[in-house]
Formats: sequence, C-alpha cells, structure tokens
Amino acid sequence: MNEEFQGYKGRALQVLKRIGARVGDIVRVLKKGQKFEGILIPRSEFGDDKHIVIKLRSGYNIGIFIDKDTEINKIGPGVKPTFSPPPLPDQKTKLPRVAVLSTGGTIASRVDYRTGGVRPALTANDLYSVVPELSDIAVIEAQILFSIFSENITPNHWSQATKYVARHIKHGVAGVVVAHGTDTMGYTAAALSFALQNLPVPVILVGSQRSADRPSSDAATNLIGAVKAAASAPFAEVVVAMHETVNDQSIIFHRGTKTRKCDTSRRDAFKSINTSPLARFKNDKITMLTDNYNRRESQRKLTTKPLFEEKVSLVKFYPGLNPGVIKWYAENGFKGIILEGTGLGHISSRCFPIIKKAIARNILIGMTSQCIWGRINMNIYNTGRDLLKLGVIPLGDMLSETALIKMMWALGNTKDEEEAKRLLTSNVANECLCRTVF
Amino acid sequence: MNEEFQGYKGRALQVLKRIGARVGDIVRVLKKGQKFEGILIPRSEFGDDKHIVIKLRSGYNIGIFIDKDTEINKIGPGVKPTFSPPPLPDQKTKLPRVAVLSTGGTIASRVDYRTGGVRPALTANDLYSVVPELSDIAVIEAQILFSIFSENITPNHWSQATKYVARHIKHGVAGVVVAHGTDTMGYTAAALSFALQNLPVPVILVGSQRSADRPSSDAATNLIGAVKAAASAPFAEVVVAMHETVNDQSIIFHRGTKTRKCDTSRRDAFKSINTSPLARFKNDKITMLTDNYNRRESQRKLTTKPLFEEKVSLVKFYPGLNPGVIKWYAENGFKGIILEGTGLGHISSRCFPIIKKAIARNILIGMTSQCIWGRINMNIYNTGRDLLKLGVIPLGDMLSETALIKMMWALGNTKDEEEAKRLLTSNVANECLCRTVF
Repeated sequence: MNEEFQGYKGRALQVLKRIGARVGDIVRVLKKGQKFEGILIPRSEFGDDKHIVIKLRSGYNIGIFIDKDTEINKIGPGVKPTFSPPPLPDQKTKLPRVAVLSTGGTIASRVDYRTGGVRPALTANDLYSVVPELSDIAVIEAQILFSIFSENITPNHWSQATKYVARHIKHGVAGVVVAHGTDTMGYTAAALSFALQNLPVPVILVGSQRSADRPSSDAATNLIGAVKAAASAPFAEVVVAMHETVNDQSIIFHRGTKTRKCDTSRRDAFKSINTSPLARFKNDKITMLTDNYNRRESQRKLTTKPLFEEKVSLVKFYPGLNPGVIKWYAENGFKGIILEGTGLGHISSRCFPIIKKAIARNILIGMTSQCIWGRINMNIYNTGRDLLKLGVIPLGDMLSETALIKMMWALGNTKDEEEAKRLLTSNVANECLCRTVF
Repeated sequence: MNEEFQGYKGRALQVLKRIGARVGDIVRVLKKGQKFEGILIPRSEFGDDKHIVIKLRSGYNIGIFIDKDTEINKIGPGVKPTFSPPPLPDQKTKLPRVAVLSTGGTIASRVDYRTGGVRPALTANDLYSVVPELSDIAVIEAQILFSIFSENITPNHWSQATKYVARHIKHGVAGVVVAHGTDTMGYTAAALSFALQNLPVPVILVGSQRSADRPSSDAATNLIGAVKAAASAPFAEVVVAMHETVNDQSIIFHRGTKTRKCDTSRRDAFKSINTSPLARFKNDKITMLTDNYNRRESQRKLTTKPLFEEKVSLVKFYPGLNPGVIKWYAENGFKGIILEGTGLGHISSRCFPIIKKAIARNILIGMTSQCIWGRINMNIYNTGRDLLKLGVIPLGDMLSETALIKMMWALGNTKDEEEAKRLLTSNVANECLCRTVF
C-alpha cells in the first residue's frame, strides 16, 4: 500500500494527486457553502473511492463525498509535533518507580501528524514530554504490551497482562498503571482483579475518552491521577481511574469488579455500580472513600491466577429469546453460561427445559440482572424459585460483565465443578456484596 | 395435587398435618432463637420436602429448613380480605372512561389470603375497592388480557395487546392503562409504541415494584397516576408510568421507546435514557416536560401495525464472544441481529467474516451500545468504519432493547429488506434522536 495516500484509490486518489495533498497534510474543502479544514487521514481498506476523510480541529473525523461541486485545496503540510526534551528526574531521586504498561486505546495514542494515523506514544520519554507533570510524581518505566483497539482484547490478553503486571511488581515498583481503551476497560479491570491476588501495591487501569491531541482531552489528567495513585495511594487493589465528573477537578478510582462504562462519550463515563468509589484524587491529594479496603504493604507476596476459560458465554435475555441459542452453547463444549435476566433474576419458562439439560451436563449457569443496579433475589417469585431448583446459581449484586469474567476465571483455575461453584459464589475481589441466605 | 397443602410433601407435609396448618394459615416458626411469623404459602413443584415457605409481613417470602430444632405452630387461620362495596360513580357522571387492561405482574395482583398465591385483582369493582380514589378520576372498564409473569411475555403477546388496546380506543375511551410486570414493561412499551400509530389518546403502561398487599406498595399511587394521565393528559403517546423518586410525591411518564428498568427493586427503577421524561403527575396535576409531543386529538384515526418477526436476536458483545453464535443465528433462519457493541459501536474484528457472510444472506445487522447512555458513532475509529463498510446499520442513541423490538417490528411489517432498513433508520416513535450525517 502506498503510505503517502494510504487507503485512497480511484477518483479520490486522482484528486489528491492533482492538488498535491498527501495523508497528514492540512486541506480545506468547500462544499455547498460549507468549509471544512483538517488533516487528511488514511482510509480503511474497506473504503470506497468517492470520499476523503479529514480530522477536524474538534478531533472528529469527517468523510466528504467528492463530486464536481467539491473544491479541495492543500493549505499546508502536516505539522510535526515538537517534543521538548523531557525533564528527566535526577538519577539519585527518591521518587517512587511506577510501571506504565500500554495495551492500546485512546489514552496510549496520539495522532501521528505525518500519517494522520493514531500510534502509541508510550516510551517513558514520550510520556514525560506529553505530560511533563509526571516527572514530579514518579520515575516511569514504560512498556508497550499490545497495541490494539480494546474491543479486540481477549481473555488471552488478560493472562498476558497479568504476567507483565506481576513481573513489574516483583521488580519492586510502587505501583502499576495499565493504559487501556475504555471500551472494554471494565472487563479487563475485573479480569485483573481476579487474576492478581494478595496485591502488595495498587494496579490502576486508566483510559481516556478523547485522544491527547484534542484540546478537550482527558488523557493527561487521568494519567496524572493514575500515576499519583500507583506511586502513593494507600490501597493495594485493581481500580479504574477516570474523571469523576465532566470537569477536570477530580479523578475517581472505581473498584475493578464494580465498574462499567455507562456513557459512549462523556469523560465521566465510568461509574461504580452498587457501591461507592474506592478513592478520589483532587487538589493533588488522594482521599479514601471507605475504610474497608486492602492496604498497601510492599512486603506482601503477590500470587497470580492468570488462566481464563474462553468457553463461557453471556446471554442477555429478552422477550422472544430463542432457547436454541442456549442449546447451541451447551452442545458446543461451553462450560459455563451467565444469563443476564430481567428484574430480580428471571427468564422465560420456555428456556427451562434446555437449562435443565445443560445443568445435567455439568454446565455452570449463573444469573445476573440486566437492570445493572440492585441485586437479584430469586426467592420472591416462582420463576426465580423454579430456576434455583433447576440449579441456576444466583449471583447477588454482581455486574453481568464481572460475573462472566469470574466464571471464565473460576473455570480456568479448576476442573472441579464444585470448586468452581464455590469460587463463583464466594467473595474474591469485592465483586459481590452478598447477604447471608438463611 | 392437594390444594390445602399445595406443593408440600414428605417431611414438611407431615409436620404441617401434625400442627393442623394449611396453606393460607398464619404460622409462627422458632429456630435458633429467631422468630418468623407469616402466611404459609404453596411450594413450587420443584420443591424438596425439607422446607416450608412463609410470606413475612414485610412481603418477602422465606424458606425455612425443618430440622429437629425447628418449632412450628399455627397461630391463626388465613385472613380473607374484606372488600368494601365500591363507591360506584353515578351512571350519569361526566367522568372520562378509561380502559384498564391487565397482563399480569405485581401491579395487577394481590395475595389471595386463602391460598397465599398471587392472583389478578383486576375487575373494575376490585380496582375501585383496592384504590377507591380511582372512582373520582374515571369510569374504569377493566379487562384481564393475560395473567402471566412478564418474563413470559413474547412478541405474540404484543400483537394481541395491540389489538385489545386498539379495540378500546375505537370504542371511545379517553385513554388506556396497561398494567404490566416491571421486568419486561420497557420492552412491551417499545413494542406498543411502534405498533400503535397515529394515536388519538394516551396509552399508559404501569407497574409496581411491590405488591399491593405490602404496606410500602407503590401499586396504588402508580395506578392513580396512570389512570389520571389516561383520563386527561394532553399527550397521545405510549408511556411508562412509575415513581419518579423513592417517595410517593410524583409519578413520572417515560416515553415507551426511551425507557428501561435500571434497578432490580427501587420504586423509581425506570429511567428515561438519553432524553428527559415526557410528563410528571404531582399535586393532582399533570405537567408536560417538553413542548415537542403528540397532542391528544380524539378525532385522529388510529392505525395499527401489530406484527413482529420473532426471528430477530440481540447479541451482547464481550471480550471472548464466540463468533459461532452469530453464525448459528445466520444459519437458522434469523432475519435480523442487533449487536450490542462496546463504546461508540464496536465489536471484535474476529466477528467481521461471519458478519460479512450474514449480510450477504440479506440478514439485517444493527449496532447499539451496551453503555446505555450516549449515542454510537461509527465514524471515529477504524473498527466502526470497517463495520459500516460491511453494511452494519448504526442506530444512533437507540436503546438496545428498543432497537431489537424495532427490528422485529420492521421485519414483521415488510418482506422488503430495503424498506425494513428504511424503517429501522427513520424516526417512528421518538426512539432515535438522530443527527444528520453529512
């Protein structure tokens, strides 16, 4: 592929060649009285030959259909960002060491102004240069683990990330920051919560909703809060660090098993569900929001349980759900299913026969609620009681996503069905604020 | 089955016979120093022979294991509720006529004190007797449509409900109330929003989170708000009426396509998503919360489009989702799939090949976000753009549940794929606050 015109072909390529504009250059488009200015960015391989795509100053991309009334001009070359030499901390500094591991996603990236593409900017020097405040907080040890969109993260990536985090902790860092795309950051946070046990130091997942090259980016503030917590927070748990509100005044730390992305684009998209957040970073200070947490203790010996069983599925129930899909899972070697039921933990009785058969095949079936908030209670209505009798496992106030990952983890760590059930229903990482059942 | 001891067998049955307690009687249990008093209620057919179940005064049921240290006594017979004669409105009244149709669920039921079972209480006389305030608001025409738990509602029930609602509207009622279990009330509200077009009068779905025989029940207040709106609200749309907050001071009306149950048990479990509620009932007055709504106009001619295609599915994406499940739907005659993606509308690229094949078979594939709040935008990241190129249909800020039902409805109303796509992407019942795409 021609990198200078990456992805452009046919009519669009002809126009770009004619005006001498390459990917990364700044172009101005006039169309139907409207003016658009921005950086010409590459197209995906699925692109047609009739549009060009530019990244506007607002940070958003726009595709523009090229017809005879479209006037396109190159108005400047791509601006290369200048990197000031990083204010490297004195070698003899007493600043804590923090590992910053990147997996991809908006937080770990910035637009490369030459290609218009997004690339990870995660060497320690890059980080100090983009967020100079970090050099006052910690000595950063940066490492790129993966460079993928977070929707492409799989359970296998969780296992790998567990090993890398553990390695840095064993080498004595004060804490670990994992830069992650926000789309599946909640899932990865839950996975690491189960896989990293007996943590001596904090593990902070951090994302951003807008890339660092946009004026409104939350990347720098989130990263500062995350590194601050990794360096000096009193807790030793896996958390997600994001904006508390839409303004930049505080970063909030959500427990890894109790948080989900609840907005497609707001900076405060992550919420703690069925519990309060663990801590807050505001005015340069970290405040704990509960007394009930695992304390930082550098001598504590980390243990890892990094395996996840991929043959576990999540089925969201809805009126008209075809029970055949549960049958498909049961007949294709799946070892567990989380049912995301309605209300207190219900699904249609037309699914009961196949559930009975699946449980007879030793498939674990757990119940959560699609309501998100609140807890299931399968003792109130007949449907719940009937499901309990069939052997469906009630999962309290656990998030569906957390329940899915916990089941993958439980079945990844034992071949014994009863032991997996025991793990699933006991509290491992604050995922379930369970009431005693009489 | 012996009705007096319904569901009890073995050891439990022996104990009940010995103390002379039948289902419906009040019993007191002493166990390990704790005392439980309540109504003995029937057990399900899946029940063992070692527990009895009583309904406590709190309204919750509790199963008690019977061992040698359990002391059980009958302390009284079941109390039959007394019905005061309904304050029937004068035959010459000018009060509006309101149809109250029940489908089942907590709102439409009360405990039958003879059997401990829950049964619908939906004759007009029963309603006036349970909620005497109704007789000041409207002349009620009550009808039981179904008597099922709402998790057992199917698309076929939506078609039937559409016909019944339409029949009452054609007979000139001022509005229709549909009493519904809260578990799937949001789904039914969306279904009726698409199926009932050009509404002359309001259609109010109403539920309750606690049954009417519990002191803290929200059934009466919700029902009063619903009947008031059906009788006199200025709007003619399908809405859900529930508590606005946990207190009893206001009932809020959510648009049927923009609401979901967001808590398993709170009285204000329903929320309007990505929009403000339509109206509020407080201090005996209905206030509109927007100017942009369909006005009541009794001369307007209702049209119904009551058909729903059941071969449409909703797949919630998560890391590790096996693409085989999408293949199963594609190979089993499904005509449409809603993907509940992450963030702005993403799923793993390992699903791309099967999606491409499914679309080649003329299966409609739509994208929503599991974030719930916000809107998808598939033009920002490569994953989104690639999915658009494959032919995945972006569904803006539509709720996943609403998108599913809209696709069932679109495919139920036309065999023409292009027409179904057009319906899916145009605004039919305020389900999508769409921005123009350049």
